[in-house]
Amino acid sequence: MQLALESNMFFMGVEYLAVFCCGLVGGLAAVHKEYDLFAILVTAWLTALGGGVLRDVLLEVPPVGITDRWSVIAALVSGIAIAVLHLEVDKLKWSMLTLDALALGLFAVIGTSKAMYLGSSGMTSVFLGMATALGGGLVRDMLLNDVPMIIRDKHWYAVPSAVGCILDVFVCKGRMAGLLNVEQEIALDLVIIALIVGMRLSSVIFNITFPGAMERHNV
Amino acid sequence: MQLALESNMFFMGVEYLAVFCCGLVGGLAAVHKEYDLFAILVTAWLTALGGGVLRDVLLEVPPVGITDRWSVIAALVSGIAIAVLHLEVDKLKWSMLTLDALALGLFAVIGTSKAMYLGSSGMTSVFLGMATALGGGLVRDMLLNDVPMIIRDKHWYAVPSAVGCILDVFVCKGRMAGLLNVEQEIALDLVIIALIVGMRLSSVIFNITFPGAMERHNV
Amino acid sequence: MQLALESNMFFMGVEYLAVFCCGLVGGLAAVHKEYDLFAILVTAWLTALGGGVLRDVLLEVPPVGITDRWSVIAALVSGIAIAVLHLEVDKLKWSMLTLDALALGLFAVIGTSKAMYLGSSGMTSVFLGMATALGGGLVRDMLLNDVPMIIRDKHWYAVPSAVGCILDVFVCKGRMAGLLNVEQEIALDLVIIALIVGMRLSSVIFNITFPGAMERHNV
Repeated sequence: MQLALESNMFFMGVEYLAVFCCGLVGGLAAVHKEYDLFAILVTAWLTALGGGVLRDVLLEVPPVGITDRWSVIAALVSGIAIAVLHLEVDKLKWSMLTLDALALGLFAVIGTSKAMYLGSSGMTSVFLGMATALGGGLVRDMLLNDVPMIIRDKHWYAVPSAVGCILDVFVCKGRMAGLLNVEQEIALDLVIIALIVGMRLSSVIFNITFPGAMERHNV
Repeated sequence: MQLALESNMFFMGVEYLAVFCCGLVGGLAAVHKEYDLFAILVTAWLTALGGGVLRDVLLEVPPVGITDRWSVIAALVSGIAIAVLHLEVDKLKWSMLTLDALALGLFAVIGTSKAMYLGSSGMTSVFLGMATALGGGLVRDMLLNDVPMIIRDKHWYAVPSAVGCILDVFVCKGRMAGLLNVEQEIALDLVIIALIVGMRLSSVIFNITFPGAMERHNV
Repeated sequence: MQLALESNMFFMGVEYLAVFCCGLVGGLAAVHKEYDLFAILVTAWLTALGGGVLRDVLLEVPPVGITDRWSVIAALVSGIAIAVLHLEVDKLKWSMLTLDALALGLFAVIGTSKAMYLGSSGMTSVFLGMATALGGGLVRDMLLNDVPMIIRDKHWYAVPSAVGCILDVFVCKGRMAGLLNVEQEIALDLVIIALIVGMRLSSVIFNITFPGAMERHNV
């Protein structure tokens, strides 16, 4: 079954835009560290498509990040763009944060749905959706020898993607059981993406953080 | 052929206990660095099941760490447990060291046997057994931006697992050649695990270390 | 179709020599950090064969780095050799640089050709060729908690491998279309390897570097 979110040109366009934005955010990390253009391209590509490669390796299907021409082009163009436009992108803090949250939501839904339609169980699909959404940034930070942003950033980043992946499993199950048609699936997918974006942005705006280990003191 | 060590409820229970203990040890690293609950869950899961995921990706079979319900539950519960009980676990240094050594032995034997029964050669199975035993801690340390414990720790950690994996290849070959029955295989597996635990603990207790590069001086 | 470069004993010998040299260079990093013999073996193996493992996982074929007996032996022997001969190898700076450049070229061509003959597209094969050439050093540096050499080193390292992989795609296409016979393919492969070695060494000798992000100043 085709992914609902890849069934028309509009959504494909949104997906490539998400890849492009992820690439910008990723490449910026390499620009700030003053690495060369090759390193910028690698980090842009890895941030944008590394999560999908991780998912596809675990699913044992050919990785989109090295086989889909337009995804690769979107990622590499984003690397070149950030090498030129880094000053402008640096100033667009809130736009980038929103676009990054959008990519987080989109990748979570696409990753989960892809796994479900390839026959994975709900639990496995949640793992694979989260791998798609979080994997790219995670591998980039391991490469650049930083503690990954999803671990350092106390604001919600992984949590919205987890919630979204879990909800998407139910949407996919409904669709596979024939309870939803493709339009309804797309509508619900968009609601989930909006929820992820909303949770992520609320967390940053209102400084909502996730608790750590229970604080206790030696007695 | 079914893995001898997964053929009865008792051994399955021991395996989940090993997953749980690995998760406790792994999550503790994230607690000490004061990361949030999500990071604690990720490191617990990665330490407990990351080695098996590595092995299964190399074997091209669906990764246990994202498909086996009880393994995932054991790993996530260990993450929650360590977020609450970190002070207690910190005090149980020797118990944890023993349980960690037990998990090392168990994962080495299970990983090697799984690879052998899926048709890998002896050499490949040793690699995959060691990947199962050592991979989780290794990936966790790469994620948390530490030099992996198996590289920093001068005490024997990798060496006992290597010895155990090599011995287990002979046990599996004996079983596949019909020279051993399932009870004998289990008995020998337990001897190997005991040997790994013994080597690991002796190394820590008696401070036995593995040599480095030959020390030589410029003349 | 058999890889042209693996079709006769001479080239197989060169390939194992490349594995051995990569292992020496990789193990040396662990010797300098004063890790133990096991860590030296792991880094030698990972540097020499990790790139191929990455390629084979992405191609979904059994990884050469854990299945090919002679490759594994060459990698492990290189680890033992460097543990003994590190002082000598340290002095052979230029020889090692040349041999490392040779390995870079050889791995790029072998990786690209393997992917092409297994049916990957040209773009995918370039990615896989570069993964073969660069992946080992990259994973080693992530393991040893360094920023990867290919990102730190301002001299050309990735660029020659990219150029070589792209050229090799055309050679493979020519061979598959019947325009080239095996001797011509080998000859062109050797030209590509010479070009990669030449670019790499020129970059170090004449201090040619790759530009970073466009330098611009806030106005």
